[in-house]
Amino acid sequence: MALESELIAWLGENLPTSSRELVGLGDDAAVLGQVGGGNTVVTTDTLTDGVDFLVDQVDPQQIGHKSLGVNLSDLAAMAARPVAAFVSLVLPRQGTATRTPLELAIDMYRGMIPLAERFEVTIAGGDTNAWDGPLVVSITAIGETTSQGPLTRSGGQVGDQLLVTGKLGGSILGRHLAVEPRVTEALELHQRYELTAGMDISDGLSLDVSRLAKASGVGAVLDLSALPIAEAAHRLSEQDGRSALEHAMSDGEDFELVLAASADVAEKILADQPLNVPVTRIGELIETPGLWQIDQAGKRLPLAPCGYEH
Amino acid sequence: MALESELIAWLGENLPTSSRELVGLGDDAAVLGQVGGGNTVVTTDTLTDGVDFLVDQVDPQQIGHKSLGVNLSDLAAMAARPVAAFVSLVLPRQGTATRTPLELAIDMYRGMIPLAERFEVTIAGGDTNAWDGPLVVSITAIGETTSQGPLTRSGGQVGDQLLVTGKLGGSILGRHLAVEPRVTEALELHQRYELTAGMDISDGLSLDVSRLAKASGVGAVLDLSALPIAEAAHRLSEQDGRSALEHAMSDGEDFELVLAASADVAEKILADQPLNVPVTRIGELIETPGLWQIDQAGKRLPLAPCGYEH
Repeated sequence: MALESELIAWLGENLPTSSRELVGLGDDAAVLGQVGGGNTVVTTDTLTDGVDFLVDQVDPQQIGHKSLGVNLSDLAAMAARPVAAFVSLVLPRQGTATRTPLELAIDMYRGMIPLAERFEVTIAGGDTNAWDGPLVVSITAIGETTSQGPLTRSGGQVGDQLLVTGKLGGSILGRHLAVEPRVTEALELHQRYELTAGMDISDGLSLDVSRLAKASGVGAVLDLSALPIAEAAHRLSEQDGRSALEHAMSDGEDFELVLAASADVAEKILADQPLNVPVTRIGELIETPGLWQIDQAGKRLPLAPCGYEH
Repeated sequence: MALESELIAWLGENLPTSSRELVGLGDDAAVLGQVGGGNTVVTTDTLTDGVDFLVDQVDPQQIGHKSLGVNLSDLAAMAARPVAAFVSLVLPRQGTATRTPLELAIDMYRGMIPLAERFEVTIAGGDTNAWDGPLVVSITAIGETTSQGPLTRSGGQVGDQLLVTGKLGGSILGRHLAVEPRVTEALELHQRYELTAGMDISDGLSLDVSRLAKASGVGAVLDLSALPIAEAAHRLSEQDGRSALEHAMSDGEDFELVLAASADVAEKILADQPLNVPVTRIGELIETPGLWQIDQAGKRLPLAPCGYEH
């Protein structure tokens, strides 16, 4: 039996039954029963062997988890509720050292399914191909906005405070694979507080904050002494000699949220600490364009955005 | 400037402005203004160098056209109106013999844009990466059902007549690249006539008809003498010695529609000929499962489904 039909058979037995009606897996396209609470939000991310993971060095379940996780993180960035994910696999025809192409595909799905169940995402099989090249995983995730509408990068105002969830830096030591998309956190914050702008940190805090500020038509100043630094950033610092702060500022794939809110709202969020992860104030939006830092004497100095450029 | 930002800059200037409001190109995900006439329909297709095209032998504009075209054909298969397309490119870091990665990407978009304009599809940039492997193009297309609902493979009834649009076979001589997605035709037919089932022919007529019949829980019999055979199938037959009929039966990538309708409705469609391409009766759905043919004496014989298995 051909690879795609074998995989579809496996998926038919192993995908969680979703509460949403879905014509799919076998038809030419999937019909989503009810994306209709709000607007439809769509994001797509392609991950490749050698760039985003090394197929011979990681468990395929981690590849599956990461591939879906980064897409859910993009929905979180827009404060959209996940609905469905469409998975395109291009599998190496020879498989890997330890797996046939079908086994590789199934193990990747095994990594996606628990994440899909947690966030009530319907996985629609998508498209499965084999070729003589390395593994490619391309996922498109569909979400819907809540009654609050989408959270965008462009709504920030001068005087807004910048907040981040969780701790930053050193994700390469493991967190970049075990992505924890901040879906629940984004929905919770967007529902309870008036956020003006937000995004997920995928390419490095300083680079992503500079993008949020630019999209909002303002500048941003970061209070470097306030950055919440992950334990992994300290460990990485011991290995490579760059400071933990540098890692927190510029490492990609944190997949935390950076948010903007008025001073009053930010104060309330910081006092409430409504999430299971800490929310920390890291700076504010200012009139002067560009990215800035506050030094120990309280003086404003330019800061070069640093991170992962695609 | 990095590849993705250069491409986004080019897209910002060259993509058609859409009638639909779209937050995208620069935010983490795209928000579709109004997918709401009907249900949301999603399809995804990944094309790879060496399998779906040869990057050194075809114009990248044709690759772009084909990549979007096959996705629109899947929306046509469901009689869904196209809304938006999300394009993920994985570009060879070295480019091709004649193009840098950026030039390759832009030329592919140049092939997609006219098709997108014709069918009023908003192209949302999606995701752009470079790597050491060959070119991969993964497109997800979003559509919406009309007031008639989606056309599926599973609604066929015993006694329904099978119809096809256009002519079949020999697409490898050129039509497989210059895909003409039957979007308008599908919407027109689904609007004016009561169709019971339908799909696009992407893997070969006999294989795809057997799938439609199976999904509908019935069998199908094809009247081989009635198949509309493309001129290209005759030319290919001269080259490879297989009959033109065999090519029409089993060649992939025709991207025509096969449809089922009651005898009365089918008769009306055939008399009206409401499209710019011919509609031809090729057989009917029967109670006996499986795929069958009618021989010249009118006798029913088994027919092996033949086509492109992924």
